[in-house]
Amino acid sequence: MNSFGRIFRLTIFGESHGESVGINIDGCPAGLPIVVEDFAEDIERRKGGTQKGTTPRKEDDIPFFKSGIFNDTTTGAPITILFENKNTRSSDYAKQRAVPRPGHADMVARQKFGGYEDYRGGGHFSGRLTVCLVAAGVIAKKLLSTHNHNISVRSSITEIGGESDPEKGLQRAIDAKDSVGGIVECRVNGLPAGLGEPFFDSVESAISHAVFAIPAVRGVEFGTGFAAARMFGADHNDAIEDASGKTRTNHAGGVVGGLTNGNELVFRVAIKPTSSTPKEQQTLNLETNNVESFSVKGRHDLCIALRVPVVLEAVTAFVLADLLMLEGRVPRILNH
Amino acid sequence: MNSFGRIFRLTIFGESHGESVGINIDGCPAGLPIVVEDFAEDIERRKGGTQKGTTPRKEDDIPFFKSGIFNDTTTGAPITILFENKNTRSSDYAKQRAVPRPGHADMVARQKFGGYEDYRGGGHFSGRLTVCLVAAGVIAKKLLSTHNHNISVRSSITEIGGESDPEKGLQRAIDAKDSVGGIVECRVNGLPAGLGEPFFDSVESAISHAVFAIPAVRGVEFGTGFAAARMFGADHNDAIEDASGKTRTNHAGGVVGGLTNGNELVFRVAIKPTSSTPKEQQTLNLETNNVESFSVKGRHDLCIALRVPVVLEAVTAFVLADLLMLEGRVPRILNH
Amino acid sequence: MNSFGRIFRLTIFGESHGESVGINIDGCPAGLPIVVEDFAEDIERRKGGTQKGTTPRKEDDIPFFKSGIFNDTTTGAPITILFENKNTRSSDYAKQRAVPRPGHADMVARQKFGGYEDYRGGGHFSGRLTVCLVAAGVIAKKLLSTHNHNISVRSSITEIGGESDPEKGLQRAIDAKDSVGGIVECRVNGLPAGLGEPFFDSVESAISHAVFAIPAVRGVEFGTGFAAARMFGADHNDAIEDASGKTRTNHAGGVVGGLTNGNELVFRVAIKPTSSTPKEQQTLNLETNNVESFSVKGRHDLCIALRVPVVLEAVTAFVLADLLMLEGRVPRILNH
Amino acid sequence: MNSFGRIFRLTIFGESHGESVGINIDGCPAGLPIVVEDFAEDIERRKGGTQKGTTPRKEDDIPFFKSGIFNDTTTGAPITILFENKNTRSSDYAKQRAVPRPGHADMVARQKFGGYEDYRGGGHFSGRLTVCLVAAGVIAKKLLSTHNHNISVRSSITEIGGESDPEKGLQRAIDAKDSVGGIVECRVNGLPAGLGEPFFDSVESAISHAVFAIPAVRGVEFGTGFAAARMFGADHNDAIEDASGKTRTNHAGGVVGGLTNGNELVFRVAIKPTSSTPKEQQTLNLETNNVESFSVKGRHDLCIALRVPVVLEAVTAFVLADLLMLEGRVPRILNH
Repeated sequence: MNSFGRIFRLTIFGESHGESVGINIDGCPAGLPIVVEDFAEDIERRKGGTQKGTTPRKEDDIPFFKSGIFNDTTTGAPITILFENKNTRSSDYAKQRAVPRPGHADMVARQKFGGYEDYRGGGHFSGRLTVCLVAAGVIAKKLLSTHNHNISVRSSITEIGGESDPEKGLQRAIDAKDSVGGIVECRVNGLPAGLGEPFFDSVESAISHAVFAIPAVRGVEFGTGFAAARMFGADHNDAIEDASGKTRTNHAGGVVGGLTNGNELVFRVAIKPTSSTPKEQQTLNLETNNVESFSVKGRHDLCIALRVPVVLEAVTAFVLADLLMLEGRVPRILNH
Repeated sequence: MNSFGRIFRLTIFGESHGESVGINIDGCPAGLPIVVEDFAEDIERRKGGTQKGTTPRKEDDIPFFKSGIFNDTTTGAPITILFENKNTRSSDYAKQRAVPRPGHADMVARQKFGGYEDYRGGGHFSGRLTVCLVAAGVIAKKLLSTHNHNISVRSSITEIGGESDPEKGLQRAIDAKDSVGGIVECRVNGLPAGLGEPFFDSVESAISHAVFAIPAVRGVEFGTGFAAARMFGADHNDAIEDASGKTRTNHAGGVVGGLTNGNELVFRVAIKPTSSTPKEQQTLNLETNNVESFSVKGRHDLCIALRVPVVLEAVTAFVLADLLMLEGRVPRILNH
Repeated sequence: MNSFGRIFRLTIFGESHGESVGINIDGCPAGLPIVVEDFAEDIERRKGGTQKGTTPRKEDDIPFFKSGIFNDTTTGAPITILFENKNTRSSDYAKQRAVPRPGHADMVARQKFGGYEDYRGGGHFSGRLTVCLVAAGVIAKKLLSTHNHNISVRSSITEIGGESDPEKGLQRAIDAKDSVGGIVECRVNGLPAGLGEPFFDSVESAISHAVFAIPAVRGVEFGTGFAAARMFGADHNDAIEDASGKTRTNHAGGVVGGLTNGNELVFRVAIKPTSSTPKEQQTLNLETNNVESFSVKGRHDLCIALRVPVVLEAVTAFVLADLLMLEGRVPRILNH
Repeated sequence: MNSFGRIFRLTIFGESHGESVGINIDGCPAGLPIVVEDFAEDIERRKGGTQKGTTPRKEDDIPFFKSGIFNDTTTGAPITILFENKNTRSSDYAKQRAVPRPGHADMVARQKFGGYEDYRGGGHFSGRLTVCLVAAGVIAKKLLSTHNHNISVRSSITEIGGESDPEKGLQRAIDAKDSVGGIVECRVNGLPAGLGEPFFDSVESAISHAVFAIPAVRGVEFGTGFAAARMFGADHNDAIEDASGKTRTNHAGGVVGGLTNGNELVFRVAIKPTSSTPKEQQTLNLETNNVESFSVKGRHDLCIALRVPVVLEAVTAFVLADLLMLEGRVPRILNH
């Protein structure tokens, strides 16, 4: 349930206000150099507190290697990485337990786990666990650059609150004293053709499966995506131009028949506005059984989309690493 | 690679112009009544030739039960169903082999399988295999109506070529002598709250994984979807109104934190225009290595979206059947 | 439930007295030559009726290719093979339904599937399905001889009824008018070192998992096996003699720490006596609720172990093919 | 590769001389009470240093809960448990690296992982990781006693060095200044009939798969096992005596047709003599390329079989917990 991948396989665990969150990565080839410093850039990109519109909660977010790394190199055994939770204020949440926050998992978690869930700060449902995804992404990106591969994965915000200028969209939310959504795009270059499978293990299936593991994602589209539904076929088809499969246009976004076609892989995800808006809202009080007004306390992002690009890169990277390994395109021992 | 599901598990096989296509379903409970007639309605809905804009290719599409059904009832052993391919004209395709059709899998299949692929009519990549998905859907829908469940799955076209009136959008394509895309929506009622898992096995992950197994799907969105990216949080959040989790609005489309929340499940998929447009197109000739003009011969749909609703219902139904079984909500023996 | 393997993945289906039994093989590389004649030898070895002690039931056992093979070559798409059931006499079984045969699955199948199981001739539990395993073995053995691999898998009977001379042991059973068990050994040469994983996916785990899929297997041991439990360490340890890992002795049977060590892989399985003995036996009559004497009618093997060697080779071959593919040691396209 | 189970799913990680070893358990129902003290008895049974013939290495072996447990109860989220490695003397091993120990994984680990493996004390191949299996077993045993189940799993040593009196067999090894093997038997009572599946997911397949994850296991047999190969059918068959499936004898060891039959489940495993014998042995020196005599230094068990019973119980318990959950026989929320 908390695992993903077939050969390069991840398992995430932990809770927002527990002692730590972490990730186990099985199937990573031996011989990949890994040091703590490799994680700094991507973890910094994910962290709150560094830009307007993100939460002031700060965690050191130092990855602690618990297994699978020896002499600064992967051993081929499963890798375990922990991130400690230091900067928590659980008392914020305990008193709110009777009031499930709209848009959050509070209510469904209670329904699914019968009240036994760790409800503090979203517990296991918290966006805090995306630091684990980012860590896996750091390792996966390294794999995408080994063994003659030179695959780059880059995400960026293309829209905040309907504005193509993110600053402008964010300012609208600040002015409205409300949270706001956005759109994030991912582009991958350097992929070989033929990754993926027809039907159930299409590249789109694998990527969308992983993408919806990112909290707040509400949609995904490849290439021209939803706009394709409004196009004619002669306009949408991409003419093949050479024997490598390069096409004149790239409306397909690099995937045809479920397989990469050697062109740039392009897809976008829709991120809903942060559920914890500064605005007063209404929800059920489970003790009184009345619908009440309430305001979210605590530290929250105005626009969670701002933190998504590096997470989207991460999930994309580990999906692709797994697909490459499934094809036998990454050896089980990397010689550096 | 050609399988889906964890307990209710499907494997599809076959090629467009081979002898047959088929499906194996493992994990279906024993005691479910199944007769050939159960498949008629959904298979008819999927079939071409019955409405403006769909292909005149006709197959009888009679399901042949090869295993797992005894005395008109499932036995608990794996079910195998074959559909014979009768109405094929393979010679149409053999001569076109040097000219990979834009938008089709011809080129990527060759790249992936080294030229060993069955190239006739798209081979294993053909939309012909969606008849297998529909068959699995028929069985899955039955499961969704057993054992105190009363879950309905209904899909409909909401847009063709940008027009909310499908007839009008289709007429535009006919007038343009081109193919056209569309949007299909799926709504599920009667689901319990708490299906799915946080992160990797979210309901959105499971559904999108299966949805992208349907050829021509280019995007998927849940609830307000991409529109959510342009909303403020106070507008998007759904106020919880009672202890069952019912919400005042349903912008979430019935999924929060990766779990069903007991409200109507709503999502939409974008379908690209049929790749086989009547218009002249350009593509590479692999023998001459020149880009050439060519026209698609043979029988094709102007708007493949017209055939998608029943397929979308089918994949949704088997995703949900699997999630119900994972939760232990469908017994392994059904007493009828 | 009816599948095995991670990349080279099988699914078996069908019932003894249904229309057919069959197998689906997903993940087989493209470009492997396959014709019907390739199956003749192994299917003949498995078949009853050709030697003293085996059943006179004869099936043509011709493999019908339903998918995945085109121009006598694998395409990379899933392979489906059917075997028709021709020579059945179901009336033998219908009347015995109230009397579950000792040693057979009759009683447990009814308990598991609530009476919905196809009870004719063991239904889905029948040894008839081992023809599917043999078919998969034929393909797997071919994979073990491609791409610079030269791996041979050979099984033989080492004991019948406690006699190392199989003829002599079988004669004892014939004289006793009873069925009898035996021991079958499998030896694999040409394996690379390092296949398998520590702990859960050890070579012994993978092989024993598959071996116990063969009906009537009651035990498995690697190398010196149970005899090792009576040995001292200095006697059991195999001294390593060269850098390839070759050992002076082979008490380990070619597996150390869950991994192949480059020496001959050796293991043995114990086969119980055929449950359908000619002797009168006792069992419960489910209608009268009395324990009654009864005699098995119909055609049966006196010593099912005689038919096991080719099945044991088959399961071993597909386990090893899967392990090789997991290591990326078999390319996804084979050029012949 | 390091995971096992389908619903109740384990992943183990860590190295003998790394910072810690650990286990992740996904799919455990919510609401199961768990405290550190629950682990004490089984961990003590596994520990060395408490009986003649076992290693003096002592670890506190306190389970540190990192996730999935809140208010002394499982939450339904993945459980992570770490065991710190305190009592290590890595220098013992570094100097022995050029001399792969016979019977150990030193040589195969190097072949598989290209020299990148953590070679200290067997690294990830070490028996140290069985403490993780035992921890999973503690939780699994609790599941087997919840929700109207009353399933007991008990293992015991039936033979050491060929002697049915373990003390006597161990004394022979002490006298011979050598290590020695043994046989461990497991008996499970209280199982429902119908667990398991025909063929690939037979109970024997599932149990043997897990059993061979225990280091030093060389064989497994169910019921009469290898002795069945020397029996006649009329003697081996177990007469069914009542409608629950109870049999007069239990040569089948509680499994027929791959399914539990409601009788006591009985199986035995063969354990090889500890590879680290006090005797001088020969092996290759990888630096000199000569076969040399050497003696094992460090702390080791004379008879590893002595520590196996609790580990065998553990793997059996988690196999059965998973099978029960697959059948929907354990709810996802346990109310205590």
